[in-house]
Amino acid sequence: MEVELNKNERIDELQYKGLKIIQDTTGFCFGIDSVLLSDFAKGIRTGSEVVDLGTGNGIIGILLCGKTQLKHITGIEIQEDVAQMSQKSIKLNDLQDRFSIINSNINNIFKNGLLEKNKYDVVVTNPPYKAKGTGMVNPENKKLIARHEITASLSDFINTASLLLKDKGEFYMVHKPERLVDIIEILRKNKLEPKELRFIYSNKKSDATLILIKSIKCGNKFLKVLKPLFIYNENGKYTNEIKQIYNIGSEKKG
Amino acid sequence: MEVELNKNERIDELQYKGLKIIQDTTGFCFGIDSVLLSDFAKGIRTGSEVVDLGTGNGIIGILLCGKTQLKHITGIEIQEDVAQMSQKSIKLNDLQDRFSIINSNINNIFKNGLLEKNKYDVVVTNPPYKAKGTGMVNPENKKLIARHEITASLSDFINTASLLLKDKGEFYMVHKPERLVDIIEILRKNKLEPKELRFIYSNKKSDATLILIKSIKCGNKFLKVLKPLFIYNENGKYTNEIKQIYNIGSEKKG
Repeated sequence: MEVELNKNERIDELQYKGLKIIQDTTGFCFGIDSVLLSDFAKGIRTGSEVVDLGTGNGIIGILLCGKTQLKHITGIEIQEDVAQMSQKSIKLNDLQDRFSIINSNINNIFKNGLLEKNKYDVVVTNPPYKAKGTGMVNPENKKLIARHEITASLSDFINTASLLLKDKGEFYMVHKPERLVDIIEILRKNKLEPKELRFIYSNKKSDATLILIKSIKCGNKFLKVLKPLFIYNENGKYTNEIKQIYNIGSEKKG
Repeated sequence: MEVELNKNERIDELQYKGLKIIQDTTGFCFGIDSVLLSDFAKGIRTGSEVVDLGTGNGIIGILLCGKTQLKHITGIEIQEDVAQMSQKSIKLNDLQDRFSIINSNINNIFKNGLLEKNKYDVVVTNPPYKAKGTGMVNPENKKLIARHEITASLSDFINTASLLLKDKGEFYMVHKPERLVDIIEILRKNKLEPKELRFIYSNKKSDATLILIKSIKCGNKFLKVLKPLFIYNENGKYTNEIKQIYNIGSEKKG
């Protein structure tokens, strides 16, 4: 399907089953965190109903439509122009039947009757990493909202996920290790029991740069800390696992 | 110094500065967790006042006396015969001036005026890993108390550590990954802010088997997840870091 690009927008190939994405070169472009989260969300099965909180350009939804047999994914995005851009990517990939976008603050989705509580099998999110008032503030407003908890806090994201999920529903999040203590505390407060943690390290000698967390609504207590995921090997090249996740060297399948 | 061994007791060389330990071959013998914890407790400085909660045969105190310039370490051990055995190890290593043992339940140390609150620079602990009523119960009572939270719970260990420490004092613990969520929740409740986490993996392909946690009393929020620690390399041999910690291949220094 043809779509019309605005100024600053470009189409990038995802090197996976022919999928493409439209990105605003002056805005927030997707990173490895979204790709790793899409790979980590193993609980998505045939027929799963999924929500992505803070969808941005739609990268996670597009990858999940390609990688899994999910029935439908709803992306919530607060920024109108970013939401429109993700809608164009959905058309570009012919995913209108499986992926839809709601342009809203995540805190308003129940007030406005946009979504139902206790309904979804899986919620995924790559939320803003930085607490309000911490770190460098990006001068471009679009990137600011994507990176800082300006319009919704970590608690808002986690609380909304919990409300959306059915009992034993699964919640997948990518975040920064420095927030892990807050994250765990807030998850428990919202009846989301952390079940799996995976730490991402740039290489074997570096501290962790990202965490992947799987929680289950009303799950039993028992955490698994999975084997570490390294991005680069000793020679500074991508590790085999990263190549596999990015589908490097195995295209022409889909 | 000469000491008299009971039936089932034997003297083991620690391969470090000539240090030795007495262990009961029918009881709980020290493992890699205690050795890793002793190495991880980097906050112990010249003149530090230290407490070890649940000291067992005294392995952590003996190693810390060898590795650091601590002024004094007090070990609390509930089992009378185990406490006596650790006292013999202290004599055997001529550490009477720096290492002393109190035979008590950790929950009674303030009631009986045995120790002061808000006084210590560092608290270390290798507590029982299993919550009461979970897992295989060891038929031998001595091992049972060392492994299960029979006489004191995880909350008791963490609460006691917090009460002992002065402001900004450091708390080092080794534990199992499956309890991490409980641990983090209980630490925060007791004003101990987790600052560093290190995960121990048997090898690069396995889930984590142990965690090392450093917390600071009334510390600021910001967690570092340190590079992973592997016990074995691809060939099934100890990694260089483990060799270094165990001082393998570099004896005849002390």
